[in-house]
Amino acid sequence: MKLWYSPPSPFARKARIAALELGLAERVEQIEVAVAPHKPNEEFGRRNPLMKVPALETDDGFVLFDSRVICEYLDAQAGGDRLIPAAPGKRWTVLRRQALGDGVTDAGILRRYELAARPEALRWADWLAGQQKKIDLGLDLAEREAAHWGKSLDIGQIAIACALHWLDFRFPGDDWRRGRPALAAWLAEIGQRPSFAQTMPRA
Amino acid sequence: MKLWYSPPSPFARKARIAALELGLAERVEQIEVAVAPHKPNEEFGRRNPLMKVPALETDDGFVLFDSRVICEYLDAQAGGDRLIPAAPGKRWTVLRRQALGDGVTDAGILRRYELAARPEALRWADWLAGQQKKIDLGLDLAEREAAHWGKSLDIGQIAIACALHWLDFRFPGDDWRRGRPALAAWLAEIGQRPSFAQTMPRA
Repeated sequence: MKLWYSPPSPFARKARIAALELGLAERVEQIEVAVAPHKPNEEFGRRNPLMKVPALETDDGFVLFDSRVICEYLDAQAGGDRLIPAAPGKRWTVLRRQALGDGVTDAGILRRYELAARPEALRWADWLAGQQKKIDLGLDLAEREAAHWGKSLDIGQIAIACALHWLDFRFPGDDWRRGRPALAAWLAEIGQRPSFAQTMPRA
Repeated sequence: MKLWYSPPSPFARKARIAALELGLAERVEQIEVAVAPHKPNEEFGRRNPLMKVPALETDDGFVLFDSRVICEYLDAQAGGDRLIPAAPGKRWTVLRRQALGDGVTDAGILRRYELAARPEALRWADWLAGQQKKIDLGLDLAEREAAHWGKSLDIGQIAIACALHWLDFRFPGDDWRRGRPALAAWLAEIGQRPSFAQTMPRA
């Protein structure tokens, strides 16, 4: 398999962590690619027309995207029911947790594009504030639920951790830990797993 | 179950069409809510902190989001393996097709916010062009694959149709049909299903 990724991408990191946790890393060749919405990478667009990472080419030559599809595919390659529970009750809880982490990341990335890519004269305060509100409410929910996440790693926890580490990386001055002690303690612990430590976001 | 939606939302429409196609519509109470990223709806944020539609409250009182999680949940309530194939080969094809439709919709929505919500003086041409390129390449891929979609409705086809009808609704001057005859013919046919006709996007 071939996995297209970029070193800072929190969505690509979900797939990289999943591959490591599932024992598949040796079967996944990682290929670095540069993507940014204001600079379309049309060569990469021949693989993923959305020009986003991650994208995964299977051994059959079929290109999968986005991160959720890839992570479920990897889970299945490792036998299934590993990072994504098969049992209905737990499955919805974990998939909703993944949607929460992905949604916080989406809002963070839109803030990042606004502040680091868009020309300064074109920034819109209401947009920045609205995306920040999604992050704030999303992390407040994660704080309330973190105590119940248990010790068994799942794709929802991976998505939340990728969101939080990426916020630390891109917005080091934003103190999301304030008022969220359970989430902060949880991240400190999970961040010590080799799969997380080896894939910390970098420029 | 309770489903929060807005009449124009292409993502909420995926869930509304799924409920109709799965014979679950009578079990799903639909509640209209207004959402926009620059005007956070904090009351709705108590249900979905990301303040996006759709959100689904199950009969147990657990709130699910986003559209992918909700559609898979609804599929399971109808017995499973209906709109989302369980068999591995077909499953990845359909989930990737859903990611393609959702990705085109995401890019379209970002164009819509830029052109209809953001103050005119703050618009950024490179952003608009980059999002349009994702739509163009995404629909080019859909055109190449549409002939192989077959007659059995799946969540990938629903996602693609919701993207296309929404583009017609929001960008009636954009002629995405030009050069894409297979996709245009496919949409004309699928659009006649009652589940699609009853849920066409409106303001």
